[in-house]
Amino acid sequence: MRERVIINEVGLRDGLQNQPKHVSTGDKARLARALVDAGVRYLEPVSFVSPKAVPQMADAAALTTQLPRDAGLHYTALVPNLKGYQLARDAGYATVALVLSTTDTFNQRNLNMSLAQAVDSCRLIIEAARADGIATRTYISGAFACPYDGTTPVDVTLDLTRRMIEAGSDELAIADTIGAGHPQQMKDIMTPLISEYGAERFYVHLHDTRGLASALAWTACDLGIRRFDASVGGLGGCPFAPGATGNVATEDLVYLLEAVGLDTGIDIQGLRAAVRIAEAATERTLGGRILRWIDSQEARGKTVCLS
Amino acid sequence: MRERVIINEVGLRDGLQNQPKHVSTGDKARLARALVDAGVRYLEPVSFVSPKAVPQMADAAALTTQLPRDAGLHYTALVPNLKGYQLARDAGYATVALVLSTTDTFNQRNLNMSLAQAVDSCRLIIEAARADGIATRTYISGAFACPYDGTTPVDVTLDLTRRMIEAGSDELAIADTIGAGHPQQMKDIMTPLISEYGAERFYVHLHDTRGLASALAWTACDLGIRRFDASVGGLGGCPFAPGATGNVATEDLVYLLEAVGLDTGIDIQGLRAAVRIAEAATERTLGGRILRWIDSQEARGKTVCLS
Repeated sequence: MRERVIINEVGLRDGLQNQPKHVSTGDKARLARALVDAGVRYLEPVSFVSPKAVPQMADAAALTTQLPRDAGLHYTALVPNLKGYQLARDAGYATVALVLSTTDTFNQRNLNMSLAQAVDSCRLIIEAARADGIATRTYISGAFACPYDGTTPVDVTLDLTRRMIEAGSDELAIADTIGAGHPQQMKDIMTPLISEYGAERFYVHLHDTRGLASALAWTACDLGIRRFDASVGGLGGCPFAPGATGNVATEDLVYLLEAVGLDTGIDIQGLRAAVRIAEAATERTLGGRILRWIDSQEARGKTVCLS
Repeated sequence: MRERVIINEVGLRDGLQNQPKHVSTGDKARLARALVDAGVRYLEPVSFVSPKAVPQMADAAALTTQLPRDAGLHYTALVPNLKGYQLARDAGYATVALVLSTTDTFNQRNLNMSLAQAVDSCRLIIEAARADGIATRTYISGAFACPYDGTTPVDVTLDLTRRMIEAGSDELAIADTIGAGHPQQMKDIMTPLISEYGAERFYVHLHDTRGLASALAWTACDLGIRRFDASVGGLGGCPFAPGATGNVATEDLVYLLEAVGLDTGIDIQGLRAAVRIAEAATERTLGGRILRWIDSQEARGKTVCLS
């Protein structure tokens, strides 16, 4: 019996939020269906954020009503503030994701708050969610590096993570938001956290910007982490920057984790179908490394067996 | 003072050997010069193999006379058999690389020998080299998987590696020849070898075929390995298979190793210049993940600082 690992699909939220091509609610629902058909059980499909700030997420409530409702599915909505939290609660989410960035600058740009204000805001949301019986998952955004201030000191990430745990956050997503982390940092951050709170409390959220997402994922996995975020086809990143990549591709993470003997419950061929839907919806070429390898094998007339 | 790590550049040999476009001796020498200018100190530029079998290597002796001769450079020639060894010796190489594949099928296809014959052939070459005062580096090819027989049992790789060490091979290159290995395998193979013989005896040779080269490199690095093969621009792979990639790109390996605090002595911007020469010579688009990221940043008008 292989050990189970959870992959939380964030493509519909983190992947789509900065795409220039508007993706319709129907296309998003079709993508969610394909992901669930591939075996995905955890999804973060929406964020309840200002439609002016993130137009792609304006249909959060509408999309929620069109998502698959198969048994055993776990949905999370991202909420940037208390107002967003209330919208997510009213839409019926049992889990909400909060965002706390590691620097003043990043919190200002992301939430229009100072770091201290963002900590207080997260505390208020966590308190409200606990009163409502809703679970919380807090992103420690920029846990490895801030897009404005560079490398994040390990102690800053540890301190903010501990404060969110003390505030009552059920889960933490340690996020390499700009894909600038390296494996030694992963060890330095996750080793004390796992020792203090146990591995099951943490998600690792990676972007493959500089090609190290698989190395970072394996490092976390080797330390005992069994929860990861990923985005189908590697959806995300800045569409105006050629070559810039988004979140670690779900299919690449599935390939890695299955290769080392874990059970993701997700089928890579099923993800291929989802990637095609995402490509049509965003008018972009998508797909992780493992899909390019499968394509190359099939182009040579070879049957691919990943086991 | 950062710890030094050795990157052995194999692009001119492993990268070029199956390119369809003939690369001239002059272009190869220019590429070697650019690599040395970027800080590369270890190179495997040629193999003394039948020109009929590998036309791209037919100029091995001629290229040798055109290679940079700066102080502190270390060149290795690959030799498939005793005849090749003699040619390499006569050309003045102080180190030769041997090849032992892990299965009968792979040895037959590669060397036209059974596994047992290949072991004997390697022993003869090592013996001759020791008599001549020439160092030997033996590739354990297909150490993770064989292109014909699938996953290689760890015990097979360990057994063949130990036999080559007992035969007197100075160094061993544990090679994921088809890029099908995973990090747990790396741990399972390298942990006993490092414990028995010390990390300094081993090179790790990776291909990025399925996107796990950085994860495998980090795993080896974390175990104490400080010697790696790599190929500038990721040169290699089958040029007829779209999406198929070759050796781990030197620039990606440099980025990873420098990020975790090691000193490669190699400059990524210098490697960019070498990649451009390799692209012109092979008429292919090359470049590792980190170069695509640098390109994307520059396209947005940003200055890239990798430190």
